[in-house]
Amino acid sequence: MSNRNCRIRLGRINRCFRSSVLLLAGLGILAGVALADPLPSWNDGPVKQAIIQFVREVTEKSSPRYVPPEQRIATFDNDGTLWAEQPIYFQGFFAFDRVKAFAPQHPDWKERQPFRAILENDMKALAATGEKGLAEIVMTTHAGMTTGEFEKIVKDWLTTAKHPRFNRLFADLVYQPMLELLAYLRDSGFKTYIVSGGGVEFMRPWTEKVYGIPPEQVVGSSVKLKLEMRDGKPVLIRLPEIDFIDDGPGKPVGIQKFIGRRPIAAFGNSDGDHQMLHWTAAGEGPRFMLLVHHTDAEREWAYDRQSPIGRLDKALDEAQRRGWTVVDMKKDWKKVFPF
Amino acid sequence: MSNRNCRIRLGRINRCFRSSVLLLAGLGILAGVALADPLPSWNDGPVKQAIIQFVREVTEKSSPRYVPPEQRIATFDNDGTLWAEQPIYFQGFFAFDRVKAFAPQHPDWKERQPFRAILENDMKALAATGEKGLAEIVMTTHAGMTTGEFEKIVKDWLTTAKHPRFNRLFADLVYQPMLELLAYLRDSGFKTYIVSGGGVEFMRPWTEKVYGIPPEQVVGSSVKLKLEMRDGKPVLIRLPEIDFIDDGPGKPVGIQKFIGRRPIAAFGNSDGDHQMLHWTAAGEGPRFMLLVHHTDAEREWAYDRQSPIGRLDKALDEAQRRGWTVVDMKKDWKKVFPF
Repeated sequence: MSNRNCRIRLGRINRCFRSSVLLLAGLGILAGVALADPLPSWNDGPVKQAIIQFVREVTEKSSPRYVPPEQRIATFDNDGTLWAEQPIYFQGFFAFDRVKAFAPQHPDWKERQPFRAILENDMKALAATGEKGLAEIVMTTHAGMTTGEFEKIVKDWLTTAKHPRFNRLFADLVYQPMLELLAYLRDSGFKTYIVSGGGVEFMRPWTEKVYGIPPEQVVGSSVKLKLEMRDGKPVLIRLPEIDFIDDGPGKPVGIQKFIGRRPIAAFGNSDGDHQMLHWTAAGEGPRFMLLVHHTDAEREWAYDRQSPIGRLDKALDEAQRRGWTVVDMKKDWKKVFPF
Repeated sequence: MSNRNCRIRLGRINRCFRSSVLLLAGLGILAGVALADPLPSWNDGPVKQAIIQFVREVTEKSSPRYVPPEQRIATFDNDGTLWAEQPIYFQGFFAFDRVKAFAPQHPDWKERQPFRAILENDMKALAATGEKGLAEIVMTTHAGMTTGEFEKIVKDWLTTAKHPRFNRLFADLVYQPMLELLAYLRDSGFKTYIVSGGGVEFMRPWTEKVYGIPPEQVVGSSVKLKLEMRDGKPVLIRLPEIDFIDDGPGKPVGIQKFIGRRPIAAFGNSDGDHQMLHWTAAGEGPRFMLLVHHTDAEREWAYDRQSPIGRLDKALDEAQRRGWTVVDMKKDWKKVFPF
């Protein structure tokens, strides 16, 4: 029914009125669709355009590149991709805080490396202890308790500890544009996963609240677990032994072990994500690979090929060679953090 | 608007008619709700009643035992719980068929145990090779190929190989009452998982089609995987080395590793599920633990404390002591298989 047909006659006034209302409502809805930007913190440009185009292509039923919802798996690295990772991985701050908390029960740590370095905030001395020192810290702070106890420790830390540069809770240092991207993908029928080198049980207690990603969609590094009985109740003890390292070549392995399907979209920021993006790209059908390039020293940090944390070197070359999408944080993001 | 107000006057006839239709439709919907049995293949009795009561308690918002949907995790053993497991685990038939398929490329197998026993269908000789023999068969048949190749082998086998007793495809030997239970739980907002001692990559290729359980909700035993490049493409190679055994005390470990939440309902049939049920029961809030007791030699098999496959001994005592629900297959199931 068209508005043009309206004549102001008593018998028709209702019909005309309804027709006008419907037309206005229709225009309003169309305007709403056109105006509702799923990625408001992303500047307009080729990166934002590429994301939206990919999502439309795989979700519109009439599209030749349509992908059914159950295959819409998207995997995200965490450190440097969903939240910041400088000057050290945030799980490092957690470990140092645990050493300080445990120190009164270990008077020998005052004289013993790598613990002494942490207690004296001597990062140079800590670095000198090398991988062996770091491994000892991780095992001392991340093992020997039940999974339930560890979960509580992580939750407590996350609601109290603050990042030294921003004086904010660590969970405040998540990237607003990536939160929007996660929500946009989920609204488009994607299942969003974290696939991170970080500890899986360090992430699971808070990923649902912070990212909307439930514990069962978090893949990460892990220590071995052992079932024991305590006071007639079964508990799982975290053992001081690595079970799985979900980094570099471990990421495709972790995806296969924990998800059992190849993602059609993968998001990372460093050489540790290179194999995940490569594995994703090697599947058949439409694919989307994205790297976050940290280029904004003012609002966040600027680093890539030389950084000991989150080094982006080989994967950056590969992205250029293969046409993967690279986010220039300074240029592409209107806003970095939600605050 | 009540039907009693209907008077047959010209101006009102439409309103009365509509009102009657609405009333009839309303009654029809109510009758539909009362009559629609979510578990039609379960005989009425305490087991069926216990399942329905639990689901109502945790899903009705006004219930004091209400559980939010994201916490409604239900884990199911596979062999003997969702499909049959006699006279040997179906994955054993798969392994034997693979030995026969590989045999032409391995002429030495005719003289070498445990392969010779399989090629000659000599189960006694095979049993004499013990666990070592079985492990060699599993590693020979389940490793050395890419994950993609293995998936194809499993799919092909499942659409051709037949069970010797029933002369049916193995996927036909799923339990109709359990299919209904899976669907009922999912319709009630549960996330249904398989947590099985079977190989995870032996199950994932078909669980979605057969049970409605997607690959990412299947937890099982696994071999180690290794990322390699083949013709410039990344592949994952299945190595002849056990990564994880998801049985007995491994089940709570597998649940924590892969799901990261404790289930509120767990379903099994053997002592290998004992710890999973115990782990589930030890959580706070409403819980449901169920064991399928194989008591029907005519329609399926009857076995428990003495069976080498799917032994149900300690867990049966525990179920009686703790009041877990035990299905008497003969008494509680109207129908066993869908055919």
